[in-house]
Amino acid sequence: MKALETLVGLLARLPGVGKKSAQRIAYHVLRADSDYAASLAEAIQSVRDRVISCSECGSYTEEDPCSLCAGPGRDRQIMCVVEQPSDIEALEGAGEYRGLYHVLGGAISPLDGVGPQNLSLGRLVDRIKTLHTQEVILATNPTVEGDTTALYLVKLLSGTGIKVSRLALGLPVGGDLEYADRLTLARSLRGRTPL
Amino acid sequence: MKALETLVGLLARLPGVGKKSAQRIAYHVLRADSDYAASLAEAIQSVRDRVISCSECGSYTEEDPCSLCAGPGRDRQIMCVVEQPSDIEALEGAGEYRGLYHVLGGAISPLDGVGPQNLSLGRLVDRIKTLHTQEVILATNPTVEGDTTALYLVKLLSGTGIKVSRLALGLPVGGDLEYADRLTLARSLRGRTPL
Repeated sequence: MKALETLVGLLARLPGVGKKSAQRIAYHVLRADSDYAASLAEAIQSVRDRVISCSECGSYTEEDPCSLCAGPGRDRQIMCVVEQPSDIEALEGAGEYRGLYHVLGGAISPLDGVGPQNLSLGRLVDRIKTLHTQEVILATNPTVEGDTTALYLVKLLSGTGIKVSRLALGLPVGGDLEYADRLTLARSLRGRTPL
Repeated sequence: MKALETLVGLLARLPGVGKKSAQRIAYHVLRADSDYAASLAEAIQSVRDRVISCSECGSYTEEDPCSLCAGPGRDRQIMCVVEQPSDIEALEGAGEYRGLYHVLGGAISPLDGVGPQNLSLGRLVDRIKTLHTQEVILATNPTVEGDTTALYLVKLLSGTGIKVSRLALGLPVGGDLEYADRLTLARSLRGRTPL
């Protein structure tokens, strides 16, 4: 059963897919109609062949520049800085933001050997100049690496007169105070909203 | 981003993979080295091209008969009847059984329109005759469908003098009495083992 074992081995390397799930998925592929397997194999290949990096924001796209950078109806004076292209999808899903994005391609993490030189900071500064950006929203993750990166960007942009802000930290909507961790609660207190 | 959306849509149809996981997997495929994507696409295709049904037991195999049916070192007098090929893998993992297997291809389920005629029962009876099977272990799932199928098989094999047994029901090893459901506890009491 080499073909099946190979597939299980490859599937188990996907995020959130363990050995057991990989087996279930492989058996599903076997049982499903053969069109499905062919489409899936083709989709995986075509995503690698067709999807490129947007030369503007650095997100994934099939056409350069991407629809967000090229799109009308976006406020070109605001720039939201994220770590990964997938973060853009999450923010767009919130339906709250209508500005531009910039993908850093990661966060500063000395332990992983990622320094400022590994992030697309030069391009960020160039874009801010060219676009005459008025406001930068730092939407890096609320982690040590994301915090470090945000601080670095604050320093980098200080003196330019650009308004710099960071996503609010606090309780998740629908969350339960009882189950919130200490740090989140502390941040939600510190950032309390006047009513 | 049609290529990415297509891939996410196809991935979301896999068992245990929701919309969010599908997105994470798709982004992983994008970020991973391109060898990985190519191997995965190829493995999916090759599993469909190469894996066939064993003409003996009905399990998945690349060579007919499968290694379990063709293998020496197996007790050819005992037959373990399972619903799906994946069940064989689980039982082999237990390392307790050294006999042959037979895959029914499902379980009797009137609601899903699966009757005895949809299962490979004729071949089971033929194999039992040819192999002069002494014992049949019913390893169908402990569900209504599995129970029905087991009962049907008990009737089918009655009068042949073959020893028929079913997998024991009871508490899972390492489980907690407190969290066991009522039915499992009842079965574990009824099937209590004398010490």
